[in-house]
Amino acid sequence: MNTIQIYDTTLRDGTQSEELNLSTEDKLRIATKLDQLGVAYIEGGWPGSNPKDKRFFAEMQQYQLSTARLAAFGSTHAAKVSAENDANLLALIDSGASVMTIFGKTWDIHVTDALKITLERNLELIRDSLAFLRPHAKELFYDAEHFFDGYKKNADYAISCLGTALDSGADLLVLCDTNGGTLPEEVAAIMDAVRTRLPEARLGIHAHNDCELAVANSLAAVRHGAVQVQGTMNGYGERCGNANLCSIIANLELKMGYSCLPEGHLERLTDTSAFVAEVANLRCFKRQPYTGQSAFTHKGGVHVAAVRRNPRTYEHIEPELVGNKQRILLSDLAGQSNILFKAKQYGFELDKGDPFVLELLTELKNREDQGYEYSAAEASYELLVNRVLGRARNYFRLISFRIMDSVFTEGMEPFTEATVMLRVGGMIEHTAATGKGPVNAMDCALRKGLERFYPNLGEMRLLDFKVRVLTGSVREDGHGGTAAVVRVLIESGDQKSRWTTVGVSYNIIEASRQALEDSINYKLFKDDQKKLTQAIREI
Amino acid sequence: MNTIQIYDTTLRDGTQSEELNLSTEDKLRIATKLDQLGVAYIEGGWPGSNPKDKRFFAEMQQYQLSTARLAAFGSTHAAKVSAENDANLLALIDSGASVMTIFGKTWDIHVTDALKITLERNLELIRDSLAFLRPHAKELFYDAEHFFDGYKKNADYAISCLGTALDSGADLLVLCDTNGGTLPEEVAAIMDAVRTRLPEARLGIHAHNDCELAVANSLAAVRHGAVQVQGTMNGYGERCGNANLCSIIANLELKMGYSCLPEGHLERLTDTSAFVAEVANLRCFKRQPYTGQSAFTHKGGVHVAAVRRNPRTYEHIEPELVGNKQRILLSDLAGQSNILFKAKQYGFELDKGDPFVLELLTELKNREDQGYEYSAAEASYELLVNRVLGRARNYFRLISFRIMDSVFTEGMEPFTEATVMLRVGGMIEHTAATGKGPVNAMDCALRKGLERFYPNLGEMRLLDFKVRVLTGSVREDGHGGTAAVVRVLIESGDQKSRWTTVGVSYNIIEASRQALEDSINYKLFKDDQKKLTQAIREI
Repeated sequence: MNTIQIYDTTLRDGTQSEELNLSTEDKLRIATKLDQLGVAYIEGGWPGSNPKDKRFFAEMQQYQLSTARLAAFGSTHAAKVSAENDANLLALIDSGASVMTIFGKTWDIHVTDALKITLERNLELIRDSLAFLRPHAKELFYDAEHFFDGYKKNADYAISCLGTALDSGADLLVLCDTNGGTLPEEVAAIMDAVRTRLPEARLGIHAHNDCELAVANSLAAVRHGAVQVQGTMNGYGERCGNANLCSIIANLELKMGYSCLPEGHLERLTDTSAFVAEVANLRCFKRQPYTGQSAFTHKGGVHVAAVRRNPRTYEHIEPELVGNKQRILLSDLAGQSNILFKAKQYGFELDKGDPFVLELLTELKNREDQGYEYSAAEASYELLVNRVLGRARNYFRLISFRIMDSVFTEGMEPFTEATVMLRVGGMIEHTAATGKGPVNAMDCALRKGLERFYPNLGEMRLLDFKVRVLTGSVREDGHGGTAAVVRVLIESGDQKSRWTTVGVSYNIIEASRQALEDSINYKLFKDDQKKLTQAIREI
Repeated sequence: MNTIQIYDTTLRDGTQSEELNLSTEDKLRIATKLDQLGVAYIEGGWPGSNPKDKRFFAEMQQYQLSTARLAAFGSTHAAKVSAENDANLLALIDSGASVMTIFGKTWDIHVTDALKITLERNLELIRDSLAFLRPHAKELFYDAEHFFDGYKKNADYAISCLGTALDSGADLLVLCDTNGGTLPEEVAAIMDAVRTRLPEARLGIHAHNDCELAVANSLAAVRHGAVQVQGTMNGYGERCGNANLCSIIANLELKMGYSCLPEGHLERLTDTSAFVAEVANLRCFKRQPYTGQSAFTHKGGVHVAAVRRNPRTYEHIEPELVGNKQRILLSDLAGQSNILFKAKQYGFELDKGDPFVLELLTELKNREDQGYEYSAAEASYELLVNRVLGRARNYFRLISFRIMDSVFTEGMEPFTEATVMLRVGGMIEHTAATGKGPVNAMDCALRKGLERFYPNLGEMRLLDFKVRVLTGSVREDGHGGTAAVVRVLIESGDQKSRWTTVGVSYNIIEASRQALEDSINYKLFKDDQKKLTQAIREI
């Protein structure tokens, strides 16, 4: 099987992304993870450009990478000095990286207008830089910046830059679509032209996603002879990002018959993708191909029925191949099949046409029409199913409540107080609490009133709180904006699990109350279920 | 110039996305916006599948679209009934849409295993469904589900499905890569094969993004003869999404010489993309090609210097062509130029180094650190600048307020009352109002107290209200969720203009108060400015 070298530049070009800011410690963790995934090269940074990258390379000398080689990035030497005296080249040697990648100009106007030197002088910079580094590098790559744009404007000059690099000792020439504006058929044609003119050269591709074609361009380059693909995890990178290695690796291995990672490592892809997002403290892009949370998620009723019979009907690969998994969602697009499937998960064996299924379907459609959204609030859904099927207990009833939010003098912090009157079995509990804002105050008062009866609520934490205004419900009464219907999602958790509940009302406090009540009921319900299962097991 | 028909299915296939849930009102707003963008077709939904879509089509009959045609989606009739008695087909006729798109099977195993009918019977379903609808539709499209997968398994049968549709009156055949697993070279080869076997057919492409190749596949189809491209705004859709029309339209028009939108409309692309995300209350994907906030953003030092000299060095197109703009991430110095630029718009000629500019810079950085976000709330920003520069009047002061939200008996609607004490010049106004929820009550009380002094507030309306929890600020105190910091954006308007203001607090009521106060102050401030300009003109 043909092998394609995967050259990861998340730690260098990826950090040019607006949102990706990594500490040295972050970079070390990601490098270790990329090595475990099994990429061929990890480009760690540009040691000549900033002290953080320099420190990263120094730290990396203590690490033993298993499959990957560490690469350091730098530019051809400055026109004013010689290669031997160029700080940026010397920093590369200092970095201790066994692979060095030198970028240089290949687009004539960049040479004359940006560097402000002659075309001939630029060839000297390439030649001298590579010749100087050659003895210090195990592998030496030339990164031809703006190659495709340069080739389109002045093919001969662009080729002579590559030829110079090759003659000066470059092991591989990386053709860069720096601005990301090239189309796949142009990549294919230019790759062919380069191979005709420099048949002995080994070529790589470095694409950017400005036309949403970086993956396609990388694959086109491989089909036309590239042996190395550069990119980043999750496609991080400046502007629209670099080519997304997650998609490229999966496509090459699963669709095109190439090998990129050590045998059996492809299933680490989803975990690696999520890990990098996590370390960078970035929200994962749900719809990301192959590794995203939604990549194998089904919502529509028609599809769900088919997917349950045979996953291949709406899944192009088995999600497990890349370490991902199938998810089925609830929504108003759902039919009976979704309900049956979910009910089964909750332990109910129901048949199509069962009157309870029809009741659930109607209840669900009505509620979704009001703005309830269960695909993101499965705990509320599970409670609803159990209520309709008569299995959910009433742990408490909130008889009355009052929230007061006051500012008594200008500029003071608001004072918020909640009172609640609860009935728990035959007992009435009337209590009050203050809080940070009205929802927090109600949360505090509810727990205060209930923990006496249900001490296990002490383990429960509220983790996230989301509010969405349902614009469709804005009233046309001149005060539409602040009278709009809102949907509140509350995520809660205990030591073992997390769950999300939903509430809807034009009043944010009322919507929050619903979600809070569901959240508490869910915790109590699940704990009871566990006790029951335990008891049955012990009989 | 060759024209490609853009068929937008955001409102139908897009809503299969895990995250996209649209009310009927949302769908109407998006349809109007898509029409303004100038797409050829707007697929509004599947009227036979749910009441929400049915209502949408009913409402749309009151709208006059300018360039777009409205399309309704449905399936071939059920095998058990005849076309004339199929509820789903009848709903299409009822929908009033002039364009009908019927999807049907073309992959043999889907026919035998999913529909559980013979291959021949499936051809009858296609034939009868299309023949029945033909007289009722201005245009009739056949959507060949799973076409590429089907063709690869049984080319003859897949082609005979297309041929049947064509013979039964289909104006165009849409080849679907339903599972998104097809590569561009396969699309190209299969398009060529179909055109050879059905030379008279007009073809469309409907791609999904499971390999991160939906845009490339759509472009490959166009190069190989497709005249219609189906997709969604921002690529919303199930799993990894549909083909992203934003990128497709821009690539076709700017890179490949096709025409997709009416002359001059391409520059509406970014605004339309953001609008759809906004209505759906989804975070825009920053790195989205062409229309994303980061698409023309520069961070790296080397690039920024070059881009300032000549934007084409690191931008593949002029951002203005698609209605986007260049952003340079703010360093301290760039921050100053930005402030000077904005201040100039508001009528202040300031110099770099002016102590007021430094004060503004500090104030702005502090506030952005707290979570204020002025890019979406320029009215608050303008007030801030005017306040620091001593030009904004104090129209009123809110001395104290109290909001009460009560439920006295279980199940009753909450009763909400706000009291406010205002100082207007030398007068004290103390008043109260009820409202639909706490923010609405405060809004009503503020207006009630102020309209006596400022009757022009009667013209002002609140148009939208958005809440975002700033997850970064969730506290680790066991009640993080409901004590999180929230940002409120309020959009207001009068007959002539619209403006947006912002407030931030851990208390949603306090955050809303800030945004409401800014909104009212802004209205009064702008009206005063107008009077002043008028007065000066009359001297």
